[in-house]
Amino acid sequence: MKGKCLFKYTNTIVETVGNNGLSLTDIKNISNKIEASYNKLLEKYSNKQLGYMDIIYDDLNKYYELMEHSKDFEYIIVIGMGGSILGTQMVYEGIKGVYYNEYSNKKVYFLDNSDPEKTSDIINLVDLNKTLIFVISKSGNTSETLANFYIIRNLLKNNVKNYNKNIVAIANDGTLRNIAKNENYMLFDVPKNVGGRFSVLSAVGLAPLSCMDIDIEMLMKGAREMDKLCKNDDIFKNPALMNAAIHYILYNNNGKTISVLMPYIERLHKFGMWYRQLWAESLGKDGKGQTPIVSVGAKDQHSQLQLYLDGPRDKIITFLKVNNFKQDLYIKDSNYLNNHTLSELINAEQEGSEAALTSKGVPNVSIILDELNEYTLGKLIFMYEMQTAFMGELLEINAFDQPAVEDGKKITRELLMGKSIEELTGFKSLNNRYIIEM
Amino acid sequence: MKGKCLFKYTNTIVETVGNNGLSLTDIKNISNKIEASYNKLLEKYSNKQLGYMDIIYDDLNKYYELMEHSKDFEYIIVIGMGGSILGTQMVYEGIKGVYYNEYSNKKVYFLDNSDPEKTSDIINLVDLNKTLIFVISKSGNTSETLANFYIIRNLLKNNVKNYNKNIVAIANDGTLRNIAKNENYMLFDVPKNVGGRFSVLSAVGLAPLSCMDIDIEMLMKGAREMDKLCKNDDIFKNPALMNAAIHYILYNNNGKTISVLMPYIERLHKFGMWYRQLWAESLGKDGKGQTPIVSVGAKDQHSQLQLYLDGPRDKIITFLKVNNFKQDLYIKDSNYLNNHTLSELINAEQEGSEAALTSKGVPNVSIILDELNEYTLGKLIFMYEMQTAFMGELLEINAFDQPAVEDGKKITRELLMGKSIEELTGFKSLNNRYIIEM
Repeated sequence: MKGKCLFKYTNTIVETVGNNGLSLTDIKNISNKIEASYNKLLEKYSNKQLGYMDIIYDDLNKYYELMEHSKDFEYIIVIGMGGSILGTQMVYEGIKGVYYNEYSNKKVYFLDNSDPEKTSDIINLVDLNKTLIFVISKSGNTSETLANFYIIRNLLKNNVKNYNKNIVAIANDGTLRNIAKNENYMLFDVPKNVGGRFSVLSAVGLAPLSCMDIDIEMLMKGAREMDKLCKNDDIFKNPALMNAAIHYILYNNNGKTISVLMPYIERLHKFGMWYRQLWAESLGKDGKGQTPIVSVGAKDQHSQLQLYLDGPRDKIITFLKVNNFKQDLYIKDSNYLNNHTLSELINAEQEGSEAALTSKGVPNVSIILDELNEYTLGKLIFMYEMQTAFMGELLEINAFDQPAVEDGKKITRELLMGKSIEELTGFKSLNNRYIIEM
Repeated sequence: MKGKCLFKYTNTIVETVGNNGLSLTDIKNISNKIEASYNKLLEKYSNKQLGYMDIIYDDLNKYYELMEHSKDFEYIIVIGMGGSILGTQMVYEGIKGVYYNEYSNKKVYFLDNSDPEKTSDIINLVDLNKTLIFVISKSGNTSETLANFYIIRNLLKNNVKNYNKNIVAIANDGTLRNIAKNENYMLFDVPKNVGGRFSVLSAVGLAPLSCMDIDIEMLMKGAREMDKLCKNDDIFKNPALMNAAIHYILYNNNGKTISVLMPYIERLHKFGMWYRQLWAESLGKDGKGQTPIVSVGAKDQHSQLQLYLDGPRDKIITFLKVNNFKQDLYIKDSNYLNNHTLSELINAEQEGSEAALTSKGVPNVSIILDELNEYTLGKLIFMYEMQTAFMGELLEINAFDQPAVEDGKKITRELLMGKSIEELTGFKSLNNRYIIEM
């Protein structure tokens, strides 16, 4: 597999983007902070707090039995929320493409919401007898995951003999793990020190992906290659540390509160969605954090580029570019497009946007993959995990928790147990004012 | 069709969200400005500058011949970029749902990028003999649209007799209109005073939608209902004017530079993508503009909510909520979930997030639809078009142009004509520095 990648930060430097950029002096000025962040993270790693860095050296043999078992099925449903499912979706679409279900005999559905229409649609599209179901919740108690699982399990109970063979659970604890044990499902767990959004290279991602014709060995090989680079204490040779420092400086000194990831290949859209959780949930706390955005090129040039070029100067852009596409097509009959390929067009568009943004003083970095395959995707995933962890240290926050989301969950539970929103929040007196019927 | 909708702005008021909110005094303080903005927009309308407000009263009979013609086809491909395609996708998915292609006999593909893998995939999935192709570019010169069109037209020429019957063009001008006339395609145009991102209720959207089993009469009826409300000069009865004023005040006085649209129904995800263009491209200029973001509930509670609750106080949230889903499912076997439906769960989650955000001082508005159908979607579309136009007046910018995107397009063209990026931008000396191989 072609595996060469480049990280280019030319267009973050004052020489190219002017005052909106940084200088090497800015990096030197915080070199103590960068070194301390690097050391602190490596210390956490030594203290066995960062399981996501260990799991990439795991033995993958544990998935072979499952892989064999999966061959009996024509459909796969993955049930999970957030970090339990986004990584799997990201790798699956990143390798197989957006239209894979319309080509393939084995159809894959991601049940990642509590929208009743989505759950109904998916149930109606599969033959449950021939469906392998992954149900994934590290805590074992995620309400949307359990709700969808209960609905499907009831249907299985009533329609499928030995239905427990149709279910694979990934849960460390809670209701889901209890059910899995009682009903004798195939069961995986996740090292306790691996957080949900950092778990794609654990059983959370690898168990389902091993059943979806994804080369998980190459994915891990890419991650391990990147791991070597990210352990380098020379920032000029460590892309994750350098990109974290660049984002930190531009956030802290230059008011770049928004980080836009802009892949120029549709297969990386879900990588963007995975990145979005990683960056937002890890770093958005204590009033700090950049807001992540995913924009897909070239199409979003016709939607978001006007704002990026001429709106507030609050953004740093990351381009993801692929040199070689799986397929390509020649364009005939035209003027300047004649005898060019579509890949030449989309990459020239990326270069055009990059040049226009740079000349307007919008700082941007580029990650250029020779080709998008399991190996390069593994590199990219691990680079972003490390970059997020370094950024957490630079911001002096804990990148591995998400304390704020509990309040809303509690209110939801109490509403379902019969309390009223007025009792729970006391907004009653206002609720009938400030409404326009339409 | 059920059509009741509510716009609720309770949680933008200081009494609920504290200092991050606004008071009725804030609205009164700028009542002259609001009145002037309202008058200016209505004046532009009187001067026939705002075609998007006129087209909703158009006669729809012109689509009936096309609708009949389309019955001979099993596939539809829509080719277009940005405003030429996002609105059609938004209505199609908004009514038919995400999985429609897997259910329906008539399959619809949106070719909205210059990604060669996407174009190849779509071509391989259809039988061109049985495919009706819409090619849409108001200028007639959009490069990605032409590139995709040339590729498909060549295939049609070589494989389909009377291939011109397979093509419907929507173009006012340029190369595309010339070809359409020369080769005798069915051809529609768009009133000159209707901008791309405001064109979904013109032929741009209505021609393809009329062939996709969408009730375009009801869509227009909804828009016309909303038009009445949006012409009301009393801000307390005009949801578009009120929501524009709220966004303006919170942007201007309270630093809310990011506007998050958060539908709690998957069918409205593409509405968010359409809104994203409308808001960004209309308002992102002269250093001004809010950055729009789409977040889908409940799933993004597991991805973005931590940041919204505990990150920087730079956001206003808009919830889109639907009371009645097309399908629903009962949950059994659980604790607090028992005997609830999935729709009760997702709506309780919306209420939980709303309450949590409000108590943390994050201002939020809600638009509540009794049901999501063509009629309510038409209302929503027109409300957002009016709100964007009012916001443009409040920000004192022209909401109807997009001047900044030309530079990048020019560089792309010149790259394809053989110039080098170094010649065009002069970055050569930097290009080999600031790169990390990986």
